[in-house]
Amino acid sequence: MTVADALMTDLHGSLQDPLLGSIGFLNEVMERYPQAISFAPGAPHPEFYDGVDPARHIERWLGHLESGRGLSRSAARRRLFEYGPSRGLINDLVAGLLRRDEGIDAAPESLVITVGAQEAMLLVLRALYPPGGDVLAVADPSFVGLLGAARLLDIPVVGIDETEDGPDLAALAEACVAARRDGRRVRACYVAPDFANPGGSRMSLAARHRLLELAARHDFLVLEDNTYGFTAAPGDRRPVLKALDRSRRVVHIGTFAKVCFPGARVGFVLADQLVADPAGGHRLLADDLAALKSMVTVNTPPLSQAVIGGILLENGGSLAASGRLRAARYQRNLDRLLDGLSRTLGPAGRPGVRWNRPGGGFFVRVEVPVPVTTELLELSAAKFGVLWTPMAQFYLNGGGARRLRLSCSYLDADHIDEGVARLAAFLKEGF
Amino acid sequence: MTVADALMTDLHGSLQDPLLGSIGFLNEVMERYPQAISFAPGAPHPEFYDGVDPARHIERWLGHLESGRGLSRSAARRRLFEYGPSRGLINDLVAGLLRRDEGIDAAPESLVITVGAQEAMLLVLRALYPPGGDVLAVADPSFVGLLGAARLLDIPVVGIDETEDGPDLAALAEACVAARRDGRRVRACYVAPDFANPGGSRMSLAARHRLLELAARHDFLVLEDNTYGFTAAPGDRRPVLKALDRSRRVVHIGTFAKVCFPGARVGFVLADQLVADPAGGHRLLADDLAALKSMVTVNTPPLSQAVIGGILLENGGSLAASGRLRAARYQRNLDRLLDGLSRTLGPAGRPGVRWNRPGGGFFVRVEVPVPVTTELLELSAAKFGVLWTPMAQFYLNGGGARRLRLSCSYLDADHIDEGVARLAAFLKEGF
Repeated sequence: MTVADALMTDLHGSLQDPLLGSIGFLNEVMERYPQAISFAPGAPHPEFYDGVDPARHIERWLGHLESGRGLSRSAARRRLFEYGPSRGLINDLVAGLLRRDEGIDAAPESLVITVGAQEAMLLVLRALYPPGGDVLAVADPSFVGLLGAARLLDIPVVGIDETEDGPDLAALAEACVAARRDGRRVRACYVAPDFANPGGSRMSLAARHRLLELAARHDFLVLEDNTYGFTAAPGDRRPVLKALDRSRRVVHIGTFAKVCFPGARVGFVLADQLVADPAGGHRLLADDLAALKSMVTVNTPPLSQAVIGGILLENGGSLAASGRLRAARYQRNLDRLLDGLSRTLGPAGRPGVRWNRPGGGFFVRVEVPVPVTTELLELSAAKFGVLWTPMAQFYLNGGGARRLRLSCSYLDADHIDEGVARLAAFLKEGF
Repeated sequence: MTVADALMTDLHGSLQDPLLGSIGFLNEVMERYPQAISFAPGAPHPEFYDGVDPARHIERWLGHLESGRGLSRSAARRRLFEYGPSRGLINDLVAGLLRRDEGIDAAPESLVITVGAQEAMLLVLRALYPPGGDVLAVADPSFVGLLGAARLLDIPVVGIDETEDGPDLAALAEACVAARRDGRRVRACYVAPDFANPGGSRMSLAARHRLLELAARHDFLVLEDNTYGFTAAPGDRRPVLKALDRSRRVVHIGTFAKVCFPGARVGFVLADQLVADPAGGHRLLADDLAALKSMVTVNTPPLSQAVIGGILLENGGSLAASGRLRAARYQRNLDRLLDGLSRTLGPAGRPGVRWNRPGGGFFVRVEVPVPVTTELLELSAAKFGVLWTPMAQFYLNGGGARRLRLSCSYLDADHIDEGVARLAAFLKEGF
């Protein structure tokens, strides 16, 4: 074997994890079956891209720098093209958004603008978990990006079974005690309180308060992911955990991917926790996240921040109306998918086939009576022309072996109907 | 102490490292002394932003998708706004660029488009270094972003003294042997062959060949950072290591920050190494980097990629002319800085003050007869109105305690002259 042919081995363990390969595999299957209707991607509906005009949004933000901050045109333009602060350029606008839309009182300096929520998760996990064994608790199942970031950083994760009311808080308390018994700590718990991806659970107000009490009692931080809060039905918003947090227990992560557009790759993290400074004072956890970010992506692309900043300015600093417009689409899509499943398979499903009925979010979870393998997905694509996501990768405790996830967010009504017909055929005849 | 006042401790060790704090500190000093002339930031000259027009570049790229790939207008626009492949959207254009400008024969699928060169470094280091002790060799001093990424991932680093001809290759060979003796390996060596930041060294052609031989003999990869290659004087380009690599030993990292603009945050990594697949075949290291990237930033903002793609298309797929134009400016600035130092301090410096005379790049290294502390920087800013970068943070083996770095890339001639006059006063009277 010559050097040129030598195969590398012994790479980082995450690369042997099916988790990291799964997204690539799904994309590859979608490419091979372009005619299949895909319930796989958790992407926004493309109709909302019609109103996006990067040049106009950038211009709006530049105007804001000129009129609001007194910058010359050329100084404002330079902000677009230069390196910028790792902390971000639109922190004030995002702080205003959180105040208006979520009732969160956030100082701009406690925010870091990130390359999507994904980078925010990575930064928080890196800050909180030095090597050596403290534990991350996560609702089980959990968002694949959070699990992947933990894997990439070799952080031990314990799964807390998800109930319809969010993570099982008794199990979470037990996990805290068990970790202490082993000389470790549950240092943080990741939770998406509204319409979690992929489980679909939603925490009641009481459960939100209980989680915060638990966090104080067992001294852990709550990593709140608010990606899907906006999809609630009209009048049915519940306060995010950070809005209920009186003791800096919650690190709040958000994204503009679903309410603006994913291609901007702009998210943020609000981290107002106080960190002991060697000099004797304190700094904000956000300061540390910004320092870490300088070694990950240096800063979030100013172009992207300008586009999101411009959209925020155009909307008077709030995305509530924009979110409601989108929520209506996603509620319609979800209803259509759920109605379709009931119509084609009967309200109770066929024997062994059941699904949940979440009140929002992008996803429906389907249980089937056989193991959901990649071979089954291939069969579904090739023979029935329909794609979905196997759920095993989202579970830590083995719960997802016979589950698949359906996303209906980016499909039109007729595609949902046709997809449901194909899916029903697959669920009746495919195994 | 109430919970609300509790100070967090025991965060990741990198956050105690002066390395991560140093960039924030510099920015903070610059904010406090806005009238100071700063030789600190390694930023491109702003005159080159005049020609950047994001809307036009995006339009050009959309047109390319329509005419070159047969996409409808609306399908092309969707590429801007959707999630995209982790691997990137402009890999074909970057492969063409590397072929034209660097003589590198790169397949598009062996490239990953990253959020700046910084993310590329993080991804490569994560892939190559599972926890457990293999060693990263770096030229000493080294780029702060590379050192920071290694720190963030808890990777042991060994510094190889920099000579004017790049890293001391005898010392590198010894480090490989020493690591093996300890049951570890030097798995990779980071090097910027042309005008390294901050040391300024440039590898001869012979040294480039010797480094590749060494890599084959001791079985390590070379992480090549080509940020400053374009700044060479006319007719003085030397082949990048990857262009000399016949056995997939070189992972090549590049950035559009200096030749296009930093605010795009677009870089790339070429990783054509073969990785053993559990199934028995092989995949590309780039496949693994893309999988890791899906857990760091998901994908590089399509908006940014579209802007860079549009610039590449406008320039016929080459940035050679654009690079030469910029190189001329940076050569002029460097000459002016070096001439100024000679004029004000004498060609030999004053006693104990010496500097190097690099043939390109953005930086000059100055030795002074006293420890270069943050207090000295404060004094320089407050009393002499001039800023620079302490170099200790760039060194692993203690070499930089009495050195400071001057960057002249983003200043105009008159600012360089005035800055040199202030600097000369500081170097004569400041300590």
